[in-house]
Amino acid sequence: MTTETRNFELRLKQRPGSDVSPDDFTLGDSPIEAPQAGQVLVKVEWLSMDTYLYERTIGDAMGPAIPLGSRMPGRALGTVVSGGLPAGTLVSGDFGWQKYATVDASATTALERNAAPDTWYLSALGAPGLTAWLALHKVLKPAAGKTLLVSGAAGTVGSLVGQLARELGLNVIGIAGGAERCKWLMQHGYQAVIDRKTVTDWKQAMLAAAPNGIDFYYDNAGGRILEAAVQAIAPGGRIVLCGHSGEYTSPTAKLTATDLLYKGLTLHGFRVWDFTAQFKEARAALLDLIIQKKLHMEETIHHGLASAPTAMDAMLNGNGLGKHLVKVHED
Amino acid sequence: MTTETRNFELRLKQRPGSDVSPDDFTLGDSPIEAPQAGQVLVKVEWLSMDTYLYERTIGDAMGPAIPLGSRMPGRALGTVVSGGLPAGTLVSGDFGWQKYATVDASATTALERNAAPDTWYLSALGAPGLTAWLALHKVLKPAAGKTLLVSGAAGTVGSLVGQLARELGLNVIGIAGGAERCKWLMQHGYQAVIDRKTVTDWKQAMLAAAPNGIDFYYDNAGGRILEAAVQAIAPGGRIVLCGHSGEYTSPTAKLTATDLLYKGLTLHGFRVWDFTAQFKEARAALLDLIIQKKLHMEETIHHGLASAPTAMDAMLNGNGLGKHLVKVHED
Repeated sequence: MTTETRNFELRLKQRPGSDVSPDDFTLGDSPIEAPQAGQVLVKVEWLSMDTYLYERTIGDAMGPAIPLGSRMPGRALGTVVSGGLPAGTLVSGDFGWQKYATVDASATTALERNAAPDTWYLSALGAPGLTAWLALHKVLKPAAGKTLLVSGAAGTVGSLVGQLARELGLNVIGIAGGAERCKWLMQHGYQAVIDRKTVTDWKQAMLAAAPNGIDFYYDNAGGRILEAAVQAIAPGGRIVLCGHSGEYTSPTAKLTATDLLYKGLTLHGFRVWDFTAQFKEARAALLDLIIQKKLHMEETIHHGLASAPTAMDAMLNGNGLGKHLVKVHED
Repeated sequence: MTTETRNFELRLKQRPGSDVSPDDFTLGDSPIEAPQAGQVLVKVEWLSMDTYLYERTIGDAMGPAIPLGSRMPGRALGTVVSGGLPAGTLVSGDFGWQKYATVDASATTALERNAAPDTWYLSALGAPGLTAWLALHKVLKPAAGKTLLVSGAAGTVGSLVGQLARELGLNVIGIAGGAERCKWLMQHGYQAVIDRKTVTDWKQAMLAAAPNGIDFYYDNAGGRILEAAVQAIAPGGRIVLCGHSGEYTSPTAKLTATDLLYKGLTLHGFRVWDFTAQFKEARAALLDLIIQKKLHMEETIHHGLASAPTAMDAMLNGNGLGKHLVKVHED
């Protein structure tokens, strides 16, 4: 039960640039709405910081641009307060950047508590985990002993990819920004790292990190890193595009038919919802690895609803490891 | 038997630009070499004009650049004159731009005469046919009723792709240069055409030709046509890159991770020799269609060894339909 009567929410005031600032949002409040028939009142516990959400703040992307003045949407975890589900039920849904959400029960997913912390439903057992597992197992389909390059390796998806790839017996090379993140990668499945902040010649850095050649590339960056990977990868190489953090504000990769043709490369733009038929298989495989304690999920926790803008900025600019989460009610 | 005693050959004098001229070659002659043990003397009957060969005249490409001053290589058909195979045997091999070739018997492939003209071993039953069939059946794998866009549609590969795609029940849209070629396409499997020579807005032209959307793109062009196809193709679309005639002298396509990611596109750079394990299946399927008279192969014949440079230029610039061949001994 809640004794609070006001709901607080963050609304998008202006479109952010390459950084996200609290000034881009306004705080609003309104009475907590009582659930109608078929609805539930959810106490929003955890907000998930995701690149797709940032992209929708700046324009049309994987989904339509978020209208200025409206409440920020966003994946979240919460617990049911009242309405058509038992109080205390753990639920996920697009509850948005607010303290309480009054939503249709059908727009929530009731979750079982399992071997993992609840918050992993937003990472290893959520869209990032599905993205990591499906793009690796259903698109790249790498053979043991081969070499996989991963950009954005210290992010939510990238850190899972490294661990999943090691389970498959691959040599894994990560790209991340800064010495701390690179050190952390070496402790979590990666066998070589490239520090994004010190690279001058990307192709040379990749070839130096992979003396036996690069067979597969899991791209979370796009831009010049993707361009260099196309140059560095071995003939017959396969590339899956899962993110494009280097192209948010200006697409920069210049890929030519010639490059792709001469080396017989495959590029696959991956959207997780094209693979819904395989979600069940992926979730079971991920949960199995979690139960075996073979998956580690690093989390960076931000405190209080008002920290959501700086949390998004930290996620975007790689300040902090792994999954960025906002603990909504801990002001 | 031959009563000639001199062999004539064309040697690469200078690297051609975007056109190929007789001035780029010199004519040389030498005595016909008698075959040694394990060799055969082949009368070179037909030279195959192929884009890979042009590319090797201008620089490193699918194979190393042809050294200046050396005899032009090139796929060809011939008949055995003497040596380790029965006289009159039809053989294919890389005999080069010359009238007679003295080569190891193991470097020739003895061919059976079948339902098709001999010359089809250089087109429908050769590398172009394998490329058309394998890229369609093993990479694009389109479902009946879907729409396929093909560039270079009046070329050897493109004209085969159109016919094979119609056999699969696809709607096929071709891109070719000039009214004559476009008319010819409409008579050979294509249901709509885009005349390359009259297009101003490529994306609009593609969308207008495909009111139900484009699901697959068979690319023989690269460059700005590929760029536009990435914009015009439907989400989830698949693209196979088999040629890049728009990028021989300057790669121009600018593909970004963002474009490929948002639409969940797949690009596959196709090299026919990556599919050798499936050559037998492809050849059987092609021969079966030929026996059923379901494949038509247009040929443009050039006469005499000395016509090879202008034949290559015509192939490159789309002067003449279908497969360009040089009938070597018909001066």
